Amino acid sequence: MKWTSTKLLVALAFVGLMSMLFVGTVSADTMNADDYNEAMFNKNMDIWFMLMLVAFLMLFIRKFEWGVCLGVLLVTATSFISYMFIDQFYLGKDFSQVWSMGNMIMAVVCSITAVIGIGVFLGTVRMWQYLVAGVFFGATFQLVLWTMNSLIPDLGLGTPVDPGGSILVHMLAAYWGWGVILALREKKAFDEPMYISKHSTSFVWLASMLLFVLWPSFVTGTLDNMADVTMGTITCYMAGIGSIISAYLVCVGVQKKVNPLIYTYALLAGPVAIGSPLLAFDMEIAAWAALGLGLIAGAISALSFIFLQPWLCKKAGVLDVMGVHNLHGVGGWLGALTAAIVVSGAFSANVAAAILVVVIGLGTGAICGGVIRLTRKEQEWFTDDTDFIDNPAPKTQ
Amino acid sequence: MKWTSTKLLVALAFVGLMSMLFVGTVSADTMNADDYNEAMFNKNMDIWFMLMLVAFLMLFIRKFEWGVCLGVLLVTATSFISYMFIDQFYLGKDFSQVWSMGNMIMAVVCSITAVIGIGVFLGTVRMWQYLVAGVFFGATFQLVLWTMNSLIPDLGLGTPVDPGGSILVHMLAAYWGWGVILALREKKAFDEPMYISKHSTSFVWLASMLLFVLWPSFVTGTLDNMADVTMGTITCYMAGIGSIISAYLVCVGVQKKVNPLIYTYALLAGPVAIGSPLLAFDMEIAAWAALGLGLIAGAISALSFIFLQPWLCKKAGVLDVMGVHNLHGVGGWLGALTAAIVVSGAFSANVAAAILVVVIGLGTGAICGGVIRLTRKEQEWFTDDTDFIDNPAPKTQ
Amino acid sequence: MKWTSTKLLVALAFVGLMSMLFVGTVSADTMNADDYNEAMFNKNMDIWFMLMLVAFLMLFIRKFEWGVCLGVLLVTATSFISYMFIDQFYLGKDFSQVWSMGNMIMAVVCSITAVIGIGVFLGTVRMWQYLVAGVFFGATFQLVLWTMNSLIPDLGLGTPVDPGGSILVHMLAAYWGWGVILALREKKAFDEPMYISKHSTSFVWLASMLLFVLWPSFVTGTLDNMADVTMGTITCYMAGIGSIISAYLVCVGVQKKVNPLIYTYALLAGPVAIGSPLLAFDMEIAAWAALGLGLIAGAISALSFIFLQPWLCKKAGVLDVMGVHNLHGVGGWLGALTAAIVVSGAFSANVAAAILVVVIGLGTGAICGGVIRLTRKEQEWFTDDTDFIDNPAPKTQ
Repeated sequence: MKWTSTKLLVALAFVGLMSMLFVGTVSADTMNADDYNEAMFNKNMDIWFMLMLVAFLMLFIRKFEWGVCLGVLLVTATSFISYMFIDQFYLGKDFSQVWSMGNMIMAVVCSITAVIGIGVFLGTVRMWQYLVAGVFFGATFQLVLWTMNSLIPDLGLGTPVDPGGSILVHMLAAYWGWGVILALREKKAFDEPMYISKHSTSFVWLASMLLFVLWPSFVTGTLDNMADVTMGTITCYMAGIGSIISAYLVCVGVQKKVNPLIYTYALLAGPVAIGSPLLAFDMEIAAWAALGLGLIAGAISALSFIFLQPWLCKKAGVLDVMGVHNLHGVGGWLGALTAAIVVSGAFSANVAAAILVVVIGLGTGAICGGVIRLTRKEQEWFTDDTDFIDNPAPKTQ
Repeated sequence: MKWTSTKLLVALAFVGLMSMLFVGTVSADTMNADDYNEAMFNKNMDIWFMLMLVAFLMLFIRKFEWGVCLGVLLVTATSFISYMFIDQFYLGKDFSQVWSMGNMIMAVVCSITAVIGIGVFLGTVRMWQYLVAGVFFGATFQLVLWTMNSLIPDLGLGTPVDPGGSILVHMLAAYWGWGVILALREKKAFDEPMYISKHSTSFVWLASMLLFVLWPSFVTGTLDNMADVTMGTITCYMAGIGSIISAYLVCVGVQKKVNPLIYTYALLAGPVAIGSPLLAFDMEIAAWAALGLGLIAGAISALSFIFLQPWLCKKAGVLDVMGVHNLHGVGGWLGALTAAIVVSGAFSANVAAAILVVVIGLGTGAICGGVIRLTRKEQEWFTDDTDFIDNPAPKTQ
Repeated sequence: MKWTSTKLLVALAFVGLMSMLFVGTVSADTMNADDYNEAMFNKNMDIWFMLMLVAFLMLFIRKFEWGVCLGVLLVTATSFISYMFIDQFYLGKDFSQVWSMGNMIMAVVCSITAVIGIGVFLGTVRMWQYLVAGVFFGATFQLVLWTMNSLIPDLGLGTPVDPGGSILVHMLAAYWGWGVILALREKKAFDEPMYISKHSTSFVWLASMLLFVLWPSFVTGTLDNMADVTMGTITCYMAGIGSIISAYLVCVGVQKKVNPLIYTYALLAGPVAIGSPLLAFDMEIAAWAALGLGLIAGAISALSFIFLQPWLCKKAGVLDVMGVHNLHGVGGWLGALTAAIVVSGAFSANVAAAILVVVIGLGTGAICGGVIRLTRKEQEWFTDDTDFIDNPAPKTQ
């Protein structure tokens, strides 16, 4: 009796266990992958959303709105294709690697970097040249990825700490764009009028406020661990809240009144700067450290718009149209160096990454700018008149 | 000793196993349903978001902005209720089927189809008639669902391949709208001026660019498998990228300058056309095939705006106000036929579905249009003046 | 043999079982937590999105657009910090409680309540005072949370039924804002002109329509059960659809034409009112009951804008600038009382919560308003001129 019942129990336990092992393992694995992919699906879309919002962040010139949108779409299209093409046909990655959710996020991060980068010279090149710029930028981005993921570690400097892209995205965008304008050497841009309107600037407010909102998807877009995602969300929003406050105080303190085209940018300096040290702080103080970093970033960025931009542009003899360097360049440096100092062992890697990104950005940007310069013709800048039918007839004609 | 320990082990194993079986099974099932419902929750919201954006895609007539928004809201409300009412009280589905996440997505897909459809006659009917149009459209959509899911398979033609709605949504919207205008026969619409403004058209850019972004939620809204969702996201974005490029090249090539009211629509032709063949291509070439389809779709749609629209509207003697047919009609046909050819065995079903949707759309649209015509009165079209207090006083008066 | 094989089986079963117990339990727990946190991540972002949209809902005064955005950002920053600071340093919650996904949602709900609340006096205080208002409001919100979660249950009245915030968010915002204006006693606000423009009001339409879309994330933001989330999504959207219809009918019925600044607000009264009775109705009739509640809410809210607002503001001698009470106050009362009646046993708790929120809101609002009054100086209201550089120079100067 006992013996039989034991055998029955054992058999039952074994059968049950095996089925559990099977069900358990399979469903657990599938589930994890599903969860990850579902999260990535949403973040991928959020980053695409941010990419389009960056266009509206640059929409303040009343007579140059549609051109900004079109330029953004064109550079997005070719930079995305260029990135993917290199992955699949040059680097020879297999299909499931190239076209995974994770790599699609890298591709749209490449495109949003390109979109930020064209802000430096937006409105001073011909419309079809954004297509060209995108092709070049896809290659630049792949080169920087290789530099940060392979070259720097292979040199024994360790891996750069940059989960949220202070270096990879923001610094690269700023210095690549500066590489382009240094090659273009377009003096006329200084003299073109840039009248704004109430509503063109309200679009900028909308874009800035929604970029703030969606930013956690951007900085956590490569994280696969929910504890990290939670921490990244905390530090990202707290850094942004810091910049909201300090950028206001600096604007009012220095210029008596707020320049909306400085404030709407500088309030994003916290999220830019938190990119590298996103997960760097001790949990107990992380939120407040991020708030502090955001306060510093917003202040420095606003001050850069007010003091650095005129000096730098005069010195260099070129115009950073959207003041990209004051948000992404300066904010990126702040993030890169903060992580270099805070994260034990990250100093060499992060400093190397920052310097190499400046060098590669300026260099490859200059090549791209040279090609654009050769094929550019004189025209009025910062205007939709050149590229768009003025008052489109109703759709029947 | 050994015996006792064995019994202990067995008992322990059994108790543990049973509890595991229970916990494991339940949590696994619940999890899968939770994952699915969580994904559907987000996609449901994204499609609602797109529905509202379609309003802003049609906001370019400077003096007719609020009326577009109000008309969209009214037709949305009644088409949603009409769809659900038929499900619950006419088809007799039980509550948990009718009000599931999946069916809520079908209902908002019904409503967004109605919103696209009213674009054909927007601004040429009285405001309250959008409420009526929505009631009619809910029934039309249910009829088309039955046709595609039951009638065509029952005729032995197989099931139409249309996961992303090229036929169900886009073709139906276009031909239902055309059914309405053919019944309305409103000649005056041709003569009404449609002045645009810089910012009214910037709203259109915003809507078009964000529709591009959110589109993967729309085409994958009925998929319950993450591998399919990933593939659908790839092909959807790549088709859109194709249209961004080709619509620009065609606009510039044919008309020298870009008509923003053509470009902002035609850049969405890829996502429209990918609806049916969303999952049709071999994985190895899917992304690039989708890019190719998008290139073709953007070009054909832009050409339709330029050449087909004037010819067709003149021939038919009616005005397709928003040029719905050039994006959704033409793009829908392209998608339906692409899937018919590429997917083995889908030819009969897809061709039958496309033809039946044209017939049902035109027929039920004409009935709806006839009712509207009977109750319409003469007034100025394409203006907010008729329906809105001109300069609303502050809210105290 | 048998004996050995039995021992082997038992050992195998035991080892397998223990590993399963470990893997199974951990992964199941982690998964559930992951699912929950992933859902909260998205909802958190959606509520932040809504917070920014509330700014655009209040953007209709043509010459006072940027100030609305800036005021919203400033009050958001300090109310968020104030809420978190009290949690961590005054209430002494530990870090993982304070900075969890769930509590981050409570913090942004606090901030969105503050943003709605400032709508009552927006444009009639100095810009930096929004920073002060936020600090005060964080404490008010914590006091109300304690009242609803601890005081009322401790008094033996049961726990208030308010999952979607009719009481906690909407009533509190309205009465706190009224507390502020009653202390400010700003008569001049009545006389300041508030001219709108076509596009400023189109931004309001955009905000209203997208708030409608995102509302389910708001009302289900504290739910951790997918069945409840599904039900909340159903009732939220159906209530909104009801308001879309009834607000239109009341506007046209009473005033012949639609006042866009009434309609765009009143169409949200359904989602406001469904907050408390979100899950209160029997499943079989829930959707239609919510539709009915939305029909009533939209009508009452529109009527409040038309009839209650002028009477109340004249009587009180103060101006509710955005008519916050007509949407959030009236809609909140409707929701609180509906749940009080429908949910068995909730009457005392909900009535007590509603009354206490009115008292606390008015009281703490008056304190905040008193402080603002003491530090305010005379200036023109409802204008960007005071705070912004009029026509910002290009970014080089």
